[in-house]
Amino acid sequence: MHFGVNYTPTVGWFHAWLHPDWDSIGRDLDDIARLGVDHIRIFPLWPVLQPNRSMISGSALENLRQMAVEANSRSLGVYVDILQGHLSSFDFLPSWMVTWHQRNMFTDAEAVDAEMRLVREVYSALEDLPGFLGLTLGNECNQFAEAHHPSAMPADPGQIDHWIDALLKPVREPARKSGRHLVHCENDAVWYEDGHCFTPAQAARKGDITAIHSWVFNGTAQQYGQGSDACLRHAEYLVELARAFAKTADRPIWLQEIGAPGNVIDPERAADFCRETIRHALDCRGLYGITWWCSHDVDAGLADFPPFEHSLGLYDSERRLKPIGRVFASLAQQAPAASAAQRRTTALVIPCDEHDVPVMRGALAPGGSLFEAWMRLSSRGLRPAFVTSGDAASQAALHERGISKCVQVPLTSGGEYGAVSDPRLLHAREAGH
Amino acid sequence: MHFGVNYTPTVGWFHAWLHPDWDSIGRDLDDIARLGVDHIRIFPLWPVLQPNRSMISGSALENLRQMAVEANSRSLGVYVDILQGHLSSFDFLPSWMVTWHQRNMFTDAEAVDAEMRLVREVYSALEDLPGFLGLTLGNECNQFAEAHHPSAMPADPGQIDHWIDALLKPVREPARKSGRHLVHCENDAVWYEDGHCFTPAQAARKGDITAIHSWVFNGTAQQYGQGSDACLRHAEYLVELARAFAKTADRPIWLQEIGAPGNVIDPERAADFCRETIRHALDCRGLYGITWWCSHDVDAGLADFPPFEHSLGLYDSERRLKPIGRVFASLAQQAPAASAAQRRTTALVIPCDEHDVPVMRGALAPGGSLFEAWMRLSSRGLRPAFVTSGDAASQAALHERGISKCVQVPLTSGGEYGAVSDPRLLHAREAGH
Repeated sequence: MHFGVNYTPTVGWFHAWLHPDWDSIGRDLDDIARLGVDHIRIFPLWPVLQPNRSMISGSALENLRQMAVEANSRSLGVYVDILQGHLSSFDFLPSWMVTWHQRNMFTDAEAVDAEMRLVREVYSALEDLPGFLGLTLGNECNQFAEAHHPSAMPADPGQIDHWIDALLKPVREPARKSGRHLVHCENDAVWYEDGHCFTPAQAARKGDITAIHSWVFNGTAQQYGQGSDACLRHAEYLVELARAFAKTADRPIWLQEIGAPGNVIDPERAADFCRETIRHALDCRGLYGITWWCSHDVDAGLADFPPFEHSLGLYDSERRLKPIGRVFASLAQQAPAASAAQRRTTALVIPCDEHDVPVMRGALAPGGSLFEAWMRLSSRGLRPAFVTSGDAASQAALHERGISKCVQVPLTSGGEYGAVSDPRLLHAREAGH
Repeated sequence: MHFGVNYTPTVGWFHAWLHPDWDSIGRDLDDIARLGVDHIRIFPLWPVLQPNRSMISGSALENLRQMAVEANSRSLGVYVDILQGHLSSFDFLPSWMVTWHQRNMFTDAEAVDAEMRLVREVYSALEDLPGFLGLTLGNECNQFAEAHHPSAMPADPGQIDHWIDALLKPVREPARKSGRHLVHCENDAVWYEDGHCFTPAQAARKGDITAIHSWVFNGTAQQYGQGSDACLRHAEYLVELARAFAKTADRPIWLQEIGAPGNVIDPERAADFCRETIRHALDCRGLYGITWWCSHDVDAGLADFPPFEHSLGLYDSERRLKPIGRVFASLAQQAPAASAAQRRTTALVIPCDEHDVPVMRGALAPGGSLFEAWMRLSSRGLRPAFVTSGDAASQAALHERGISKCVQVPLTSGGEYGAVSDPRLLHAREAGH
């Protein structure tokens, strides 16, 4: 089991990439190393890395490398997300992508070529560092494809297939040889939103690890309560969903983002949320690691963040360890193994079409019938799994996963309690709307 | 008369601000100093200066100051444009202005506050440098207000009044005491586009100098030919328009941007275009200066620029002086005075409403009846002026300007040959559409 944190610099947040303060960054990394975690996930900004379509900044790559070196020197492995893209409600798109130059990052051939070059160059800049563990294509890039995004870049699942494959291709061979992980990641729209162009099958099969981002402000905490099983098992639930769509029973699944957002989790209960969420997640087979969001609170002096972003850290913005940080550090230092021994013999069936797309993703969303059925069984201690309808029809597949009983559930959608990727909606929910 | 250039760094274009290469910038400035000009206009990028609404980057201000120091050390005065904003078809808006955080830069009170702080801090960072000559609020910010802009930020003229006043206010007193100039600038939509929320009266009255941007790719060269009087006098024409709306007969007018775009001016005729355009412009009363766009060609290795942007320089991207550069240098070194003695006694009347907004700006645009009437009289050697209909009714106003004859012209609009600020349209025109 790997424990790590998503690293948010205390000075200037991710704007630190414009002019890194290495002294401050070094102190941040000291904090993180003290937690006893083994890796960080870092987020350069796309417009800084690649300000023109044909220009990748050598200085930006040097800064990226320098941060990795600083982390490695503290025994922290480094995962790099490349296309940011989106971070904490803020979008960073290079000028050659927007307004007069509007391009679709998923389908525009020249844009995709440029992104491929960037993936290759980022990889090359870090390749000689043993502590460079791998890369993620970008943080929740799927948000840009959603119709309600103000700069929506529509695509269909076939185009997304092509996009993920194209971006991973330039580094597939060197990554395989060196044992590095190539990952893509999405927010929970991929699991919960009907019609969303990124699919569960892509999430669970493309790349070397399935990335899960679990945020209970998506309606789960609001609907079921912060102390509910639904809330504390939400991460586990997503991991189990991802397991259902994997091609092998031991595909690694990475809880790449999990946090305790203060708009729905009271500060004094955040540490318990952390402990319980991790305890449940560790009960999943094949869990690769847990990477908390985030290392340090966003400084209160920075404007326009959703308010809860200022309190997501394991450390506060003055670098003081918070109670939740002590809990996370304690778990990381115990280094518990995922309890792969825990067999899940009963599985709920996810009805899917011939492309393994769930016929009603809304039923998987908070409030949906499959979500609620899984939570009911879990609360009774049954520890249910999921299978796709395709696998449910295959004795071999069921056998491989040790599933002896399949349960069908009538499909009803969770409706508006589905994926939440619109920060305005987050603001509104926080305000009680 | 002041001669200067709009400075376009050879290495990385304006992306140089992400990580300035001072050696290369020094060589660029050596080139510019050799032309014999007395100033440059420089363009930091807004997202680099102010990445968060409440965060102005000290490093970015240091870089801005360093560039001014480098220029001053070569006897080049420096004008700084602050809100970029828009440059050569690329838009640079901070993440706190766009998508989920969409704000209107003209009307959002918090955004305007942030812009005011930025104006103040940029001014403060440069204030002790005698060679800091003044500032412009931003390059052609009016483009963001246009309805056809992909991120349109609508405003009305009253709101624009407030915006310009608010942004100039923080530095008005220190600028007055030190003799520095506070300027705002627009593209020619302000003169040519009916309904445009920036008005000729604002252009000609707010700030210390009226800024004129003359680009004959706006239809003038296409409609009348590159060797036509209309094309060679377009800058002079805009200066005369600006004179009509000034409150005083000697309000300084700055030809802040003038260039020879290769999509409509053949390369071998660019030097003649430069010579003739300047000869005509110098024939205007109260001309403050001429600032050529631009110092150096944009490197061919940078993608997605309108093609003509790669050949607008007085130097090419290898820093070789071009024929147009020799002509401009020769004129700058002769330092001819504007021929204020040239009285313009005949004036065409611009019918305006009670707010001094022309009742048909389209008649002022290329193809419009006032444009064509002025060009006809000019070609006959009459050197006509303009007056607003308000001034035409005032003997005092006419007397102050030495105008003895007013000519009324029936209004017909130039139609689509009006302002061109949409780079897609520029591309299309270039392609022959």
